[in-house]
Amino acid sequence: MANITKKVSWSSRADESGPPGEGTPLLNGSEPRLSRQLSGGENVFQIGRLSTVDLEEEMASEEDSLRGRPKEIPHNEKLLSLKFESLDYDNIENQLFLEEERRMSYMGFRCLEISRWVVCGLIGFLTGLIACFIDIAVEQLAGIKYQVVKQNIENFTEVGGLSISLILWAVLNAGIVMIGSIIVAFFEPIAAGSGIPQIKCYLNGVKVPRVVRLKTLLVKVCGVISSVVGGLAVGKEGPMIHSGAVVAAGVSQGRSTSLKRDFKIFEYFRRDTEKRDFVSAGAAAGVSAAFGAPVGGVLFSLEEGASFWNQMLTWRIFFASMISTFTLNFFLSIYYNNPGELSNPGLINFGRFETDTVAYNLYEIPLFIVMGAIGGLLGALFNVLNYWLTIFRIRYVHRPCLQVMEAMLVAAVTAAVSFTMIYFSNDCQPLGPDHTEEYPLQLFCADGEYNSMATAFFNTPERSVRSLFHNQPGTYNPLTLALFTLTYFFLACWTYGLAVSAGVFIPSLLIGAAWGRLFGILLASTTSTGQIWAKPGKYALIGAAAQLGGIVRMTLSLTVIMVEATGNVTYGLPIMLVLMTAKIVGDYFVEGLYDIHIKLQSVPFLHWEAPATSHWLTAREVMSAPVTCLNRIEKVGTIVDILSNTSTNHNGFPVVLEVHASEEPPKLCGLILRSQLIVLLKHKVFVELARTRLTQRKLQLKDFRDAYPRFPPIQSIHVSQDERECMMDLTEFMNATPYTVPQETSLPRVFKLFRALGLRHLVVVDDSNRVIGLVTRKDLARYHLGKHGLEELQLAQT
Amino acid sequence: MANITKKVSWSSRADESGPPGEGTPLLNGSEPRLSRQLSGGENVFQIGRLSTVDLEEEMASEEDSLRGRPKEIPHNEKLLSLKFESLDYDNIENQLFLEEERRMSYMGFRCLEISRWVVCGLIGFLTGLIACFIDIAVEQLAGIKYQVVKQNIENFTEVGGLSISLILWAVLNAGIVMIGSIIVAFFEPIAAGSGIPQIKCYLNGVKVPRVVRLKTLLVKVCGVISSVVGGLAVGKEGPMIHSGAVVAAGVSQGRSTSLKRDFKIFEYFRRDTEKRDFVSAGAAAGVSAAFGAPVGGVLFSLEEGASFWNQMLTWRIFFASMISTFTLNFFLSIYYNNPGELSNPGLINFGRFETDTVAYNLYEIPLFIVMGAIGGLLGALFNVLNYWLTIFRIRYVHRPCLQVMEAMLVAAVTAAVSFTMIYFSNDCQPLGPDHTEEYPLQLFCADGEYNSMATAFFNTPERSVRSLFHNQPGTYNPLTLALFTLTYFFLACWTYGLAVSAGVFIPSLLIGAAWGRLFGILLASTTSTGQIWAKPGKYALIGAAAQLGGIVRMTLSLTVIMVEATGNVTYGLPIMLVLMTAKIVGDYFVEGLYDIHIKLQSVPFLHWEAPATSHWLTAREVMSAPVTCLNRIEKVGTIVDILSNTSTNHNGFPVVLEVHASEEPPKLCGLILRSQLIVLLKHKVFVELARTRLTQRKLQLKDFRDAYPRFPPIQSIHVSQDERECMMDLTEFMNATPYTVPQETSLPRVFKLFRALGLRHLVVVDDSNRVIGLVTRKDLARYHLGKHGLEELQLAQT
Repeated sequence: MANITKKVSWSSRADESGPPGEGTPLLNGSEPRLSRQLSGGENVFQIGRLSTVDLEEEMASEEDSLRGRPKEIPHNEKLLSLKFESLDYDNIENQLFLEEERRMSYMGFRCLEISRWVVCGLIGFLTGLIACFIDIAVEQLAGIKYQVVKQNIENFTEVGGLSISLILWAVLNAGIVMIGSIIVAFFEPIAAGSGIPQIKCYLNGVKVPRVVRLKTLLVKVCGVISSVVGGLAVGKEGPMIHSGAVVAAGVSQGRSTSLKRDFKIFEYFRRDTEKRDFVSAGAAAGVSAAFGAPVGGVLFSLEEGASFWNQMLTWRIFFASMISTFTLNFFLSIYYNNPGELSNPGLINFGRFETDTVAYNLYEIPLFIVMGAIGGLLGALFNVLNYWLTIFRIRYVHRPCLQVMEAMLVAAVTAAVSFTMIYFSNDCQPLGPDHTEEYPLQLFCADGEYNSMATAFFNTPERSVRSLFHNQPGTYNPLTLALFTLTYFFLACWTYGLAVSAGVFIPSLLIGAAWGRLFGILLASTTSTGQIWAKPGKYALIGAAAQLGGIVRMTLSLTVIMVEATGNVTYGLPIMLVLMTAKIVGDYFVEGLYDIHIKLQSVPFLHWEAPATSHWLTAREVMSAPVTCLNRIEKVGTIVDILSNTSTNHNGFPVVLEVHASEEPPKLCGLILRSQLIVLLKHKVFVELARTRLTQRKLQLKDFRDAYPRFPPIQSIHVSQDERECMMDLTEFMNATPYTVPQETSLPRVFKLFRALGLRHLVVVDDSNRVIGLVTRKDLARYHLGKHGLEELQLAQT
Repeated sequence: MANITKKVSWSSRADESGPPGEGTPLLNGSEPRLSRQLSGGENVFQIGRLSTVDLEEEMASEEDSLRGRPKEIPHNEKLLSLKFESLDYDNIENQLFLEEERRMSYMGFRCLEISRWVVCGLIGFLTGLIACFIDIAVEQLAGIKYQVVKQNIENFTEVGGLSISLILWAVLNAGIVMIGSIIVAFFEPIAAGSGIPQIKCYLNGVKVPRVVRLKTLLVKVCGVISSVVGGLAVGKEGPMIHSGAVVAAGVSQGRSTSLKRDFKIFEYFRRDTEKRDFVSAGAAAGVSAAFGAPVGGVLFSLEEGASFWNQMLTWRIFFASMISTFTLNFFLSIYYNNPGELSNPGLINFGRFETDTVAYNLYEIPLFIVMGAIGGLLGALFNVLNYWLTIFRIRYVHRPCLQVMEAMLVAAVTAAVSFTMIYFSNDCQPLGPDHTEEYPLQLFCADGEYNSMATAFFNTPERSVRSLFHNQPGTYNPLTLALFTLTYFFLACWTYGLAVSAGVFIPSLLIGAAWGRLFGILLASTTSTGQIWAKPGKYALIGAAAQLGGIVRMTLSLTVIMVEATGNVTYGLPIMLVLMTAKIVGDYFVEGLYDIHIKLQSVPFLHWEAPATSHWLTAREVMSAPVTCLNRIEKVGTIVDILSNTSTNHNGFPVVLEVHASEEPPKLCGLILRSQLIVLLKHKVFVELARTRLTQRKLQLKDFRDAYPRFPPIQSIHVSQDERECMMDLTEFMNATPYTVPQETSLPRVFKLFRALGLRHLVVVDDSNRVIGLVTRKDLARYHLGKHGLEELQLAQT
């Protein structure tokens, strides 16, 4: 089963393809193991064993012997993958770094700060442009598609043979979706879905392989266009967040590793700390472009990612968000021949809610809360169904061609179901002079009327949402809405998790708007005199919020996003109430959709706090020990051996004063990373060579930055037998002041330090500052609150 | 000069009054010194010297000898007061605490979490009620006042002798303001001003004495009513934030020390960590009530206070904000005979901006930016003037009676100036049938007309703002606006810093709205065809944002507050642009108003990051050394002596294995606080007594909580000569795992750890975990970026 997990995991392709050293996440501790063994040659069987991870066997041998637990086949979500490495939000304060910082004048820091703002501006601008491109492309292509189908339907309505229209529609959809699905499944599986779980993980500090690559962005953009145009029950908003993040990661580094171009700018930003800050800004810019919600974008970034709130960083994120909305608005205003009119919101436009029509009263509050509860319930149902579906996909639909076929099937079924619903619907509505329907289908309705069901189905989801919010009371009859809700619910649930780039925001809003409007209509019909009830659009909005909240479980940022997208703060309070209720109700049953998918990928995700009941655990119990330490002046051969050793899982090595043969653990004097050692080896910074070649230039921070982030694997570095006898002086390169904790520190305290500072390695020391162990992300993410109190996830090489 | 500083400082009364042990901030390291010496009796001269702190002499003897610097009389803002202690955001994880946490079941933690939500709900509710009370009281009392004056003016307009009206108005104002000023100046000086700087400091982790006391709240509420009714150029919004914070600090503790009532609830929350979280919620609830901006409130709390962003905490803060707005709206809706209509915003109501009327175009963006720059310039001017004025006040207006007289003078002058302006204004406007003016003054205008200047002056500031935003084009003529801006600017500048409770938000908005409207009118007049220019209300709004931003320099939270108060997100982008421009321009000249006042109080305020150019400083250089350490099992006499020793500035003492007589510093094994030692001494937790009295109950966490936060001073604890010979075992009570840093750690790294975790003490150790020094807040706050690079503030016992 775990084998299968691997195949459809976010980073599955890392194991399957690409030459070693390019395409593989090289800071990843578990993968050099695989590639090195491939070069070995004779232990082919073992490779198979390792890559498929016969969990039962491995667990039995490792875990049981250690902890004496009963044998069991661990369930998928009870695992923690060792595949994911951690980002390092902590600066490596070695001598090189400190020297550079000390050399830099105040003006230097000012220039840096200004270039940070410039980068954020660029991120916002490019993200806005991408959003604009996606929007126009979808608009144009979907327009062509709907025109063709509509023409066809109109032709055949008279003469009969609508089944041909059905086939045309289904084939068109499936064909378009196929394109998107193929590029995603075959070229970049990480581009599947909305990308929000992946960005959440990235911001949390997990290094998700290839998530911020240029290729991912290209696949994402093309994929999202094809899936929306292909008529799937998806939105184009979620992927914008991912796109923004990729843009940020690209722009801030001043080069593209994929394109092999280095612009020699922003070199200072080539480290995890700075990059993650910019990715936050990119994600915010994405939200901002998607929903026209700059403040919501900032809050999204903070709610999902930030640990330490820094005011200057927040302002930069805000700036990127602003520029993004601005750019999108500006170019869209040109596209719509209305240049300079900047009052359009983002990709999804909820339309204008006038204050007069949206007033609410005290006695409606309980109704809103009820709707929040319904949203929570339906959201939980959605999540549970999708969870089962994802498990099924993990087991049986893991080959790319199967994934493409599933996507095509869903596209065809979506078209078929839509067509059937429209066909059998007899909800004819008069076509007003100022009708907002883009593609009104007359079908079997009388002249001057149109099929109401078609408004919901025969349309891009964004337009459907808008018409549910704003169409006059009486536009939809209750049966239409009920049927629509039902079918769309299952379609959306089936669609999420396909190998296509697409988001779940809009489908959620659409489902919610449909049942919300239904709720409003029913309310109006049960009360005879209800003047105020007669505004179904209001209930559609509340329902949309409830449903979305029930599925994704964000509160603060989502409130702001909804309010900004609505363009009216009057609804702030009800939306908050609804989102909170939905979250509370939903959380009772199951986690949010993104969290479910993160868990299914066994990502070592750190939550905000350690589990409440974990005070009885101490650093000594959670840490990994024994630790491979390096001497301050170490033999090259030893270093190469340690780096090549597959049993070394850690990427950080405490540097100690002197490793004695005695029992006593050595005193800590620094911390050095695998990536740094690789660079040192590559540049052959050996004590002996320095003596002989005095003219050789000193290694600089630049050399480390040039190698960032794709450090070569140890196998690609040739170290001769002579060189193995040389010594390496790590003093200058190690972080001389790593954060440490005493071994008696409680888990919540360790967790707090680790999370607040975004650490990657935390050294555990005894009362004489001797290295006892090392705490990394997986050691902390392992503990979580289950139904029976504190549970420990099992580590696995998935 | 420093002597004078003390007199008007936020906590001046702490030194002047109150019995020792009650009223004095007892965790404060510098004050037991004073009170103990008072009890000493023979060294009266030294007391005088200490309390007045002859800085020149002390600096000359202490600083110069240490650092060999040239003599200079340090300027006020180059000092860092030792008076302010730090809050401890870090849990004291001693054995008692860990045992309690380990005993607690998962359900126990759930209950705690629920009670946190309940407390936040209560905070929101009470804050809303207070806001409602202030609003109604101001409305009623101001109504009576304006009716009386209006009647009087109308009587005398015909017959002449308007000077009597002037006198009536001035005397009324001065009288009302006198009441508010007396209670502030004589009873609770900390209640002066808006309280925002104090709350900023509190959230930053500085213990500002008496800032969250019940008495402060009472004085604040009465003070703000009197100052607004008294016609000063002030608003009632800022003080709401302080009020919310006091409510939070009170409710969350489940008791009132002032009223000597303990409700025996929420005992778990009786520590700095939890209390500060609740105070954040209270401040947010205050903002929320003041501006009807729940999201803005959350952002304010985070922008001003938070270091570590915790999602659950943020939601609770959000909940408190929501409830606060809701409560205020609900009760105001009843007051306005419109029960259940919840669409009113907070205390300040910007009125409804319809989307149609507020559309803006691309070519207006540069104009907005220009307005932002003007706002920044005027804001900087305001701040500089107020800075000089504050210095003047610190020097010459430090006695309470002088302060009251100044407040009365300002009130009278405000009335006189207003009257003069109205009197000489000949801007008569027709009184429309749907006029919004509450108290239209006809004065010398024709029948059916009213004096336009009076709309601005003869009104509560909130109403003036609203009429500047919404009145029809042509309601004000440019001269009126220009004169109004000019006078109100100086009046508001003079008023801020008086010994009255009042905020600067509304005056800022009013000034900005006036010149903004003027800007709009001038713009419309310069362009002949400008159809879109002809909406002065829009420019009034932008001007208001610019002016407020220029004075207080918040960006993100202020944007959201403005948007929420406007009720329309269309203006989001322009407001952001304007606020950013205002901040950038203003920051070029001088800091924000709150920061200026914080600096003038020499508060050890920690900014977001260490100064950029401080990498050359290490922990060894910034730490305080030598440190007074305690043995794990220590003699009571030694502890009493150490606590009574006035040269011990620290409130935290590293606990070490054994203090040898040798040179070598001892190994760290824990950290204990002064407050804990006091409780231990009070309960006589001595090793010997424990042996003899076996039945004596064990000291529990409850005993520490009961004493929190006003721990008795060491002088109040009687320790007999026999007891001095006893031993105390600190093992159980010390925090066994304090955070430590190696001595080579760079200042930014130390700063980051300290700030992110909200520490109070950070132990500096050498490579064998031996105590070398202790870093506290003042050691970090001392370094700041001045005009000539990194500067170091001087510490002083002000």
